[in-house]
Amino acid sequence: MYYIGIDVGGMSIKGGLVTQNGEIVARYTVETRRYSEEYGIADDIRKVIDGVLAAGNVTIADIVGIGIGQPGSVDSERGIIRYSNNIPLERVPVVAQLKKFFDVPIYINNDANCAALGEYVFGAGKGYRDIVFVTLGTGVGSGIIIGGKLFEGRECAGAEAGHMVIIAGGEKCNCGRRGCWEAYASVSALIRQTKAAMEKDPSSLMHEEAAAEGKVSGKTAFLAAKRGDKTARQVVDTYIDYVGEGLVNLADIFRPDVILLGGAISKEGERLTVPLQKKMDAEAFGAKFNPRVAVKIASLRNDAGILGAAALVCSTSD
Amino acid sequence: MYYIGIDVGGMSIKGGLVTQNGEIVARYTVETRRYSEEYGIADDIRKVIDGVLAAGNVTIADIVGIGIGQPGSVDSERGIIRYSNNIPLERVPVVAQLKKFFDVPIYINNDANCAALGEYVFGAGKGYRDIVFVTLGTGVGSGIIIGGKLFEGRECAGAEAGHMVIIAGGEKCNCGRRGCWEAYASVSALIRQTKAAMEKDPSSLMHEEAAAEGKVSGKTAFLAAKRGDKTARQVVDTYIDYVGEGLVNLADIFRPDVILLGGAISKEGERLTVPLQKKMDAEAFGAKFNPRVAVKIASLRNDAGILGAAALVCSTSD
Repeated sequence: MYYIGIDVGGMSIKGGLVTQNGEIVARYTVETRRYSEEYGIADDIRKVIDGVLAAGNVTIADIVGIGIGQPGSVDSERGIIRYSNNIPLERVPVVAQLKKFFDVPIYINNDANCAALGEYVFGAGKGYRDIVFVTLGTGVGSGIIIGGKLFEGRECAGAEAGHMVIIAGGEKCNCGRRGCWEAYASVSALIRQTKAAMEKDPSSLMHEEAAAEGKVSGKTAFLAAKRGDKTARQVVDTYIDYVGEGLVNLADIFRPDVILLGGAISKEGERLTVPLQKKMDAEAFGAKFNPRVAVKIASLRNDAGILGAAALVCSTSD
Repeated sequence: MYYIGIDVGGMSIKGGLVTQNGEIVARYTVETRRYSEEYGIADDIRKVIDGVLAAGNVTIADIVGIGIGQPGSVDSERGIIRYSNNIPLERVPVVAQLKKFFDVPIYINNDANCAALGEYVFGAGKGYRDIVFVTLGTGVGSGIIIGGKLFEGRECAGAEAGHMVIIAGGEKCNCGRRGCWEAYASVSALIRQTKAAMEKDPSSLMHEEAAAEGKVSGKTAFLAAKRGDKTARQVVDTYIDYVGEGLVNLADIFRPDVILLGGAISKEGERLTVPLQKKMDAEAFGAKFNPRVAVKIASLRNDAGILGAAALVCSTSD
């Protein structure tokens, strides 16, 4: 028996046939479109499911269930995409639409929630019971596992830690608030911080790195810092400290076993976790008396989306 | 049958005999001392329990259980006071000590957690399932109810939202971090903000109010603002906005039904809840699509401590 995991993204919808050990044995992908009443996102997800079944040479009878990871706000209880910015969608009852074609349990949830579950079931979160997963990507997303169960808040509208303000009145965030963690700790924020520092220091190696890559990216400052550039190191240190402010906040609120970092920036590995663990140990409330919160890198990487969606099936059908 | 609720505070240890409807029918209080190996806090709690039983003319056979609300860090699973600043205590196994004398279930928990439970069982939280309780007192405490159960984090060391940073690098907090919510939204913070504004504006009515009360207090700015003083109004508005930053953060993270405000400042009532509800409706993530989070004043007031501790018994012995 297999799970099917569907990873809905702004560029593509990826599907995978997943074994009960978290191995992906077949894949199928379509490009994400602009959807309408006539041709909805469920039509494309259906194509991906059929593609995965064909690629794996199995039928729906071999499938325990289908999980879908979707960016934005998802009503997981009712199986509805409530809204999504990047792929413009509003109130799409995607599970009901798919149920007409596939007679297996189908689940949908927010992509960061899925990634958290994926790490819990198949990845770096194995063996822990209380996990905060944070994705440092275009935005800052979070998924929270309490006692082995996904915590979603009322009507699945919680766990939006990226929009926790860490500097009241600070940088404008896409959500409308000022000073959100996302406005300091996302890749977009790091790029903005990098550009500002480059402008002030024309001699910084960051200019070389950006020229080599053809643009300023989330890697520019990290690369130049590794080569000893002082301005770049300041950018990286300040950025990591912003990340840490949010992590310590979440430690004080949830006191989990571990905080796992995913998303593009998490590839920096120990350059992140070493200073973040130090900050955590120094600043988490009552550090002397309270249990330690570990800071680690998530392990599923590029397959986090598919495996996280598949994890939705095994954790929900328990 | 009755509950006994014990409210441990820096000045006194108050006990109450509580009916199953949340009525306090007898009380007994002793002064809080400095405790030692020879005379521990359990000795004083024992006196209060005996005093309550005598005052109510009942015996231990009439008691369902005893609940204790304790400031600081409490290991509620093991019945241990982990540490407390205001009443200097470290690793006191208070439940085991009391069990030698009273053969009923005995529970202990952090006072803000108890207050949250008290509101849920007997107060303004009745009928809700997901509640964030915030106390705006000397410090900023929080208690969190998820699905009708107290959420405490691993080893009961979570739910410390007062130490969530809302202004990274900001005001120094007692906990050692900079920029904690508590450093902006506690009574002590408001007093500091009031004094700073008074210094800049010698003509402000806040000077009159402070003279009348004999000191600058958490009421000074609120009283002068009511009389039309512009500087005082600015102090109050800014203070309320700081409170709101933390409340919206907690709404984004937990998306509860309601956030209840307790503690000294909560007596200001609608002067707090009206602007805070407005901020919540405008700034909580995805406000257009997500369920609303209500902001209300807690209802148990002066009896919150005793009733909260009693609620520990009924909610734990369910």
